[in-house]
Amino acid sequence: MSDAIEKKARAAREASYALSSLSTEVKNKVLLELADSLAANREAIFAANAKDMEASRQAGLAQAKLKRLEITESVLQQMVEGLKVIAGLPDPLGGVVKDYRTDSGLHVQKVRVPLGVIAMIYEARPNVTIDAFSLCFKAGNACFLKGGKEANNSNEILAKLAKDTLQANGVTPAAIEVMTSSDRSELQQLLTMNDYIDLVIPRGGTALIQFVHEHSRIPMVQHFHGVCHIYIDEYANTEKAVNIAVTAKTSAPATCNTAECILVHQSRAEEILPLLQERYLQAGVEMRGDPQVCGLCPQAKQATDDDWGKEYLDLIVAVKVVADLGEAVEHIQAYGSNHTDVIVSEDVQNQDSFFRQVGSSCVLANASSRFNDGFQLGLGAEIGISTSKIHAYGPMGLEELTTQRYVVRGTGQTR
Amino acid sequence: MSDAIEKKARAAREASYALSSLSTEVKNKVLLELADSLAANREAIFAANAKDMEASRQAGLAQAKLKRLEITESVLQQMVEGLKVIAGLPDPLGGVVKDYRTDSGLHVQKVRVPLGVIAMIYEARPNVTIDAFSLCFKAGNACFLKGGKEANNSNEILAKLAKDTLQANGVTPAAIEVMTSSDRSELQQLLTMNDYIDLVIPRGGTALIQFVHEHSRIPMVQHFHGVCHIYIDEYANTEKAVNIAVTAKTSAPATCNTAECILVHQSRAEEILPLLQERYLQAGVEMRGDPQVCGLCPQAKQATDDDWGKEYLDLIVAVKVVADLGEAVEHIQAYGSNHTDVIVSEDVQNQDSFFRQVGSSCVLANASSRFNDGFQLGLGAEIGISTSKIHAYGPMGLEELTTQRYVVRGTGQTR
Repeated sequence: MSDAIEKKARAAREASYALSSLSTEVKNKVLLELADSLAANREAIFAANAKDMEASRQAGLAQAKLKRLEITESVLQQMVEGLKVIAGLPDPLGGVVKDYRTDSGLHVQKVRVPLGVIAMIYEARPNVTIDAFSLCFKAGNACFLKGGKEANNSNEILAKLAKDTLQANGVTPAAIEVMTSSDRSELQQLLTMNDYIDLVIPRGGTALIQFVHEHSRIPMVQHFHGVCHIYIDEYANTEKAVNIAVTAKTSAPATCNTAECILVHQSRAEEILPLLQERYLQAGVEMRGDPQVCGLCPQAKQATDDDWGKEYLDLIVAVKVVADLGEAVEHIQAYGSNHTDVIVSEDVQNQDSFFRQVGSSCVLANASSRFNDGFQLGLGAEIGISTSKIHAYGPMGLEELTTQRYVVRGTGQTR
Repeated sequence: MSDAIEKKARAAREASYALSSLSTEVKNKVLLELADSLAANREAIFAANAKDMEASRQAGLAQAKLKRLEITESVLQQMVEGLKVIAGLPDPLGGVVKDYRTDSGLHVQKVRVPLGVIAMIYEARPNVTIDAFSLCFKAGNACFLKGGKEANNSNEILAKLAKDTLQANGVTPAAIEVMTSSDRSELQQLLTMNDYIDLVIPRGGTALIQFVHEHSRIPMVQHFHGVCHIYIDEYANTEKAVNIAVTAKTSAPATCNTAECILVHQSRAEEILPLLQERYLQAGVEMRGDPQVCGLCPQAKQATDDDWGKEYLDLIVAVKVVADLGEAVEHIQAYGSNHTDVIVSEDVQNQDSFFRQVGSSCVLANASSRFNDGFQLGLGAEIGISTSKIHAYGPMGLEELTTQRYVVRGTGQTR
């Protein structure tokens, strides 16, 4: 047991009491001043990040990971803009969700309150440090952040600037606590501190999420696989179908809302599959098809059982012909990940039937799976996309970082 | 690994797909017919319960537990009435929580959908079998029930009657699955089946909840300690204060919303403590006080450190004098359980200050803690009271057994 971690977690818990009643004005002032502070301290931030980059290069970190670790001009600018966006969003707290009187004469209100302390476990992406702090803080929560150890220098300076800004505004600096230990046993310890931490959000690859799932004694919201399906129905508009199926793979192939599998109604296979093949080839996308697909698309590779339900996160797509909407639904129930699934169809009854039977956090008709995103759905910002149904399902914005409780006013009632 | 358990869990998962789109009419018909069936099969239910009672008596089960195990006339009547009440409540599904258009022209709806499969782990109280099924079913969920092994015969006949009623209405009988194994390793297995089960709700004593907390890999809503405080403020009305403090302990001393600790503002101690002592003595309640309390109440026992934060669930109450509202809040933050806390005060500013600083699932002014209850707060019914902030905080009714997701209609949008 590390006393240092427990001390930080306790400090975050104590901070959460004060944060819950902080005014919207003070919160927005902190966020805007932190934006200014990041811009003003750019050289120090770049220098700290350069140390992390240098050490990681020497340690042979993969190129893709180095890219995520690097704080470029544009990454810094995004952090600054993100803080301003969140300062501009409505305060999710204090809203009265329900307001009524009971027969016993009690005045009951159900109101939105902060969760308390949120722990975020992520990889070596220092921009998440600022994103997570700003969302948690605006929703009245303290945050306890554990990023990848490769980003320790970057995270430390970002947290220090946040703490300085908090303190300059008379707010407890324990509103942000950063854990820079690289010790897995210390992460395990963090995951057992349910007295101090209300929610754990892991964000990163499968191994990280599995580790947190295995060891957490704290409620957890999972942001897991995105195995998104696009079903092209008997009554699909050809142009919409092809555009959606192609761009949902090509516009950002490594994101969780990218399309991984296209299901085509058999009556449309001969018409649509060659069009898909042409566009996918142009974009450098490898198709893996069932025998019918391969018959119609000579360039497609033969899919194996492993291809169904696979999250490629790459320029690869699985394609399958289905007999009808029912078979499409069964395939998604068996292989989907409750993330995002799409039907392309002009038939409203088929859309509704698909919506009823496919239980994903976001179902769409005639629009790309790439729209399951907090910004695109109008939440203003998101901390991730939940694929577990408890607490939040789908993109999590500020409201999803709060809970609701009962405030009751009586006149001496007993029972 | 027991194949039988996995088979039942898989059946419940499959049932959940069908249940999610069942009409309100069919659901209510099943609930009302099950009420009739329980009444019609009363002799068979009593006979099965008598077997459980006899075996438990021979095994030397404690009197209090035997009482909970017994299905008396009145317990059966309550099950029948409970089914009718839930049939009469509004369907929590299908409600559109948000409805808007995005700049990209998407029509976005946030709608209420079932959680899927809910596992309920409880002790030898067969009435919970019917309560849990009816709430889960009305909210469109399949349920997987594991009651105490002492109630196996009772639970089996109740589940059989429910399955028969489901089948007679063309609904899959896997909407209710009951696990009668008494093997802890099989319960552990159940707690790892996160592919089939969406939520676990343990209901019972501390040991049971700790066991589930320790072993569950499935999201869990905790219904844990109730260490409820009543703070009698400087500006309390004497009569309200004494009535609330006394009845909140005496009306049902073993419930989670009973008062366990009374905090009295020092300026009111001399006036109020003797009145409390008199009423508590009349009701047979043992007071455990700090030195100031003991000075004013000669019958009070000296409290030890263990008394603060203690859930007695008995005719015992801890009493403490505090310097001011701030000390009351600090005491509750240190020793409370996030369940229910009360301020008795005519001063609205002090009420608001208490509400702001005390984070419990339900805070009340001038009303008994015993009102934190799904029926009393107008939810119609409850499956328990959550003291963890994730998903639901406070009494959980039908709405809390659902989640919300996004349904999006486009016209070919890509990004």
